[in-house]
Amino acid sequence: MGVDLHLELSGPGGRRAALIRALREAVYSGRLAPGTRLPPYRSLAADLGVARNTVADAYAELVAEGLLTARQGSGTRVAERAAPLRPAWVAARAPARARGPRHDLRQGAPDASSFPRGAWLASYRRALQQAPNEAFGPGDPAGRRELREALTEYLARARGVRTEPGRIVICSGFAHALRLLFGQGRGGVLRGPLAVEAYGLGFHRELLATAGVRTVPLPLDEHGARVDQLGRERAVLLTPAHQFPTGGPLHPERRAAVVDWARARGGVVLEDDYDGEFRYDRKPVGALQSLDPERVIHLGSVSKSLSPALRLGWMVLPERYVGDVLAAKGEREAWASVLDQLSLADFLACGSYDRHVRRMRQRYRRRRDRLVAALAAQAPHVEVTGIAAGLHAVLRLPPGTERSTCRAAAWQGIALDGLAAFRHPQSGMPAADGLVVGYASPSEHAYGAAVEALCGVLPPA
Amino acid sequence: MGVDLHLELSGPGGRRAALIRALREAVYSGRLAPGTRLPPYRSLAADLGVARNTVADAYAELVAEGLLTARQGSGTRVAERAAPLRPAWVAARAPARARGPRHDLRQGAPDASSFPRGAWLASYRRALQQAPNEAFGPGDPAGRRELREALTEYLARARGVRTEPGRIVICSGFAHALRLLFGQGRGGVLRGPLAVEAYGLGFHRELLATAGVRTVPLPLDEHGARVDQLGRERAVLLTPAHQFPTGGPLHPERRAAVVDWARARGGVVLEDDYDGEFRYDRKPVGALQSLDPERVIHLGSVSKSLSPALRLGWMVLPERYVGDVLAAKGEREAWASVLDQLSLADFLACGSYDRHVRRMRQRYRRRRDRLVAALAAQAPHVEVTGIAAGLHAVLRLPPGTERSTCRAAAWQGIALDGLAAFRHPQSGMPAADGLVVGYASPSEHAYGAAVEALCGVLPPA
Repeated sequence: MGVDLHLELSGPGGRRAALIRALREAVYSGRLAPGTRLPPYRSLAADLGVARNTVADAYAELVAEGLLTARQGSGTRVAERAAPLRPAWVAARAPARARGPRHDLRQGAPDASSFPRGAWLASYRRALQQAPNEAFGPGDPAGRRELREALTEYLARARGVRTEPGRIVICSGFAHALRLLFGQGRGGVLRGPLAVEAYGLGFHRELLATAGVRTVPLPLDEHGARVDQLGRERAVLLTPAHQFPTGGPLHPERRAAVVDWARARGGVVLEDDYDGEFRYDRKPVGALQSLDPERVIHLGSVSKSLSPALRLGWMVLPERYVGDVLAAKGEREAWASVLDQLSLADFLACGSYDRHVRRMRQRYRRRRDRLVAALAAQAPHVEVTGIAAGLHAVLRLPPGTERSTCRAAAWQGIALDGLAAFRHPQSGMPAADGLVVGYASPSEHAYGAAVEALCGVLPPA
Repeated sequence: MGVDLHLELSGPGGRRAALIRALREAVYSGRLAPGTRLPPYRSLAADLGVARNTVADAYAELVAEGLLTARQGSGTRVAERAAPLRPAWVAARAPARARGPRHDLRQGAPDASSFPRGAWLASYRRALQQAPNEAFGPGDPAGRRELREALTEYLARARGVRTEPGRIVICSGFAHALRLLFGQGRGGVLRGPLAVEAYGLGFHRELLATAGVRTVPLPLDEHGARVDQLGRERAVLLTPAHQFPTGGPLHPERRAAVVDWARARGGVVLEDDYDGEFRYDRKPVGALQSLDPERVIHLGSVSKSLSPALRLGWMVLPERYVGDVLAAKGEREAWASVLDQLSLADFLACGSYDRHVRRMRQRYRRRRDRLVAALAAQAPHVEVTGIAAGLHAVLRLPPGTERSTCRAAAWQGIALDGLAAFRHPQSGMPAADGLVVGYASPSEHAYGAAVEALCGVLPPA
């Protein structure tokens, strides 16, 4: 087996005695766990620069002592009863495993039980077998060419994005893209202030605040963000396909208007296409990027479509930003695992991605329908909005009932967020009461109970 | 197959005409490449909210037109001769593939041709099959528990590190660790000024400078860094096992002295254990961290032992830093791919990592011996140092010959660096002439020619 073992030979009495002391210390201190197989005499002797007999003698003495055991064919091992006392500083941090909520209706993550393990493994195997040797060397900070080519084709076909591989930079997800674009000091590509939608992820606002970027909230109405209120900002971050979290698409006139604003002011639009692939009833809304690839940065990831655990996302950039983004990323920091990048390229090219998205779209549509039907039957006074697409719905609540409903949900072990959690603190919009209900997170068998529990905590009519 | 196709139906003439226009535009613009298979009638009809017959009619018309082709059993595809003109802005960035050097003797990367594809795939398969569903959900910013447990065992055994899984944070490699520790603003865990060795990676100095951290160079002598010259700095970054790039281990008295300094001043020692696993002739040098787990941050990665393409590293932290590092990492940014983390945990636990390191150690030792022998035969006046461990050697050159030798090497297509590239610009040490020769990067068959070429450009005696 040949484990790699670090031992210090020092102290009086020759090398054999020193080796015995070192092995004993390693066992007693817990560095060598019970059952661990020790290296063969020859290997350890070579590593330590001592004679083979010295190692053999030391092993023999500790076997005699009962600290090690030797059996024909299975080598020398640490005896099972040699378990050490754990030092106090180890015991101090006992692993207090966090228990998850009883019903998880938080937005943001896909159904973890539906990751396409078989198809992904097939792509990974092909990718690993076909990867050229250079793939295991220092990486291209833009990401693997194979993946950027596959994404160019896929994004054009599925999202209407117009680009080419040289303008795509692979990253670890949306947050990483924001960090690269707004990094501080010499690292930053864009400057604030940045206009954002009045409702959005607080996590993104915090990340921007840490980077020293001021965010300016744009009000929302039934046509999406009020881009007519854009002023002197240099950039605007939008969720055009499906406003997060309120749920509507940006009106076509606003889409045109925001691109006009960017052209007139020399600004840039950041398009967060976080769930663009999941649309149900209405016509697909293509990427805003296609209106002007030189004025829109299109950002996407596999976090909603496959899994956030892969840490794979992409930035589709206007040509003038490519160099700066790569400089911000840093020569040695390819970040995203090259093997995962090659696997995703294969997964896209062989059609597995399309198949998976289609399957999940059907599953999420059924869940949405089930949520809507349950609410219609049990809480017909609660309006459900934002359900034409995505992985979550917004339940509008009577004024003043959001906080108490959230508390009741928490009490029943239901994890979800109220609309207030997404509201920009500087927004002048009147706060609306509502719940953001993610229907993707629970596994299939747990979903029905979660919806029932939710209906039970809604305020009465 | 079911590709996912984004189409906008708009304009005059009804839905059939709009669909035909949309498909035609998609083909002419290049969004639908020749040979692409279109979705079945039923799927596209459902996606667009039109009757199935409408799609069938549109397809039939375009087949008649020659833009699409239909064949029994292979569905409807974009005709091969329908290739569009690529827009000018696409052609403008033709892929100018960078050609590598003829002989790559740069330090820093392992032999990319020796990645253990078979053993890694076996671990990946097991990891993917055995992963619990929650592994595909939002990740723990500390990294997977399975990997932190496997690393605790491995680092204790092979490097003498004393820790437990709760003090390990998985990251994307050494540079990511530096960014997390010295991030600006609210994100920063440690503050400068930071003492560094007078010779080291310029890339790390730049990263720190970008983060606003002043670095103070410590001179080096034959016992390693002069830690007796530490003053009011709050932290010191060292390569105790094998000074990078000059090659010696830190003297035992200095190891003790730097820990004493950290205790007395409330400082912290950052231990960059970049190649601790590759030692050849001398006794293993254990991790400095074992002297005081509360005063030393131990940093390692698989970038030298397996591949930098995996982007997997670890930070072994004193307890008081764990919370701050996790906060700096950010709740949603697990960064390292969860599947790769689980695979590495399996790879460590099943002994594949030890086997691979042992195999590579033998290979690199042979390469080092070959380099030393070639130099002894062809350039006996050139002293080779730093060869007891690691993946590179330092060739000491006569004073004033480094720049011309580097130029001669470049002229012969040999990629390597002179010692000057690693020298801290504020160091008061007299500059020594030398070459840093990495012997790990070339593949086995290319190594001999690289060494021959190197001998050919060395200055005469």
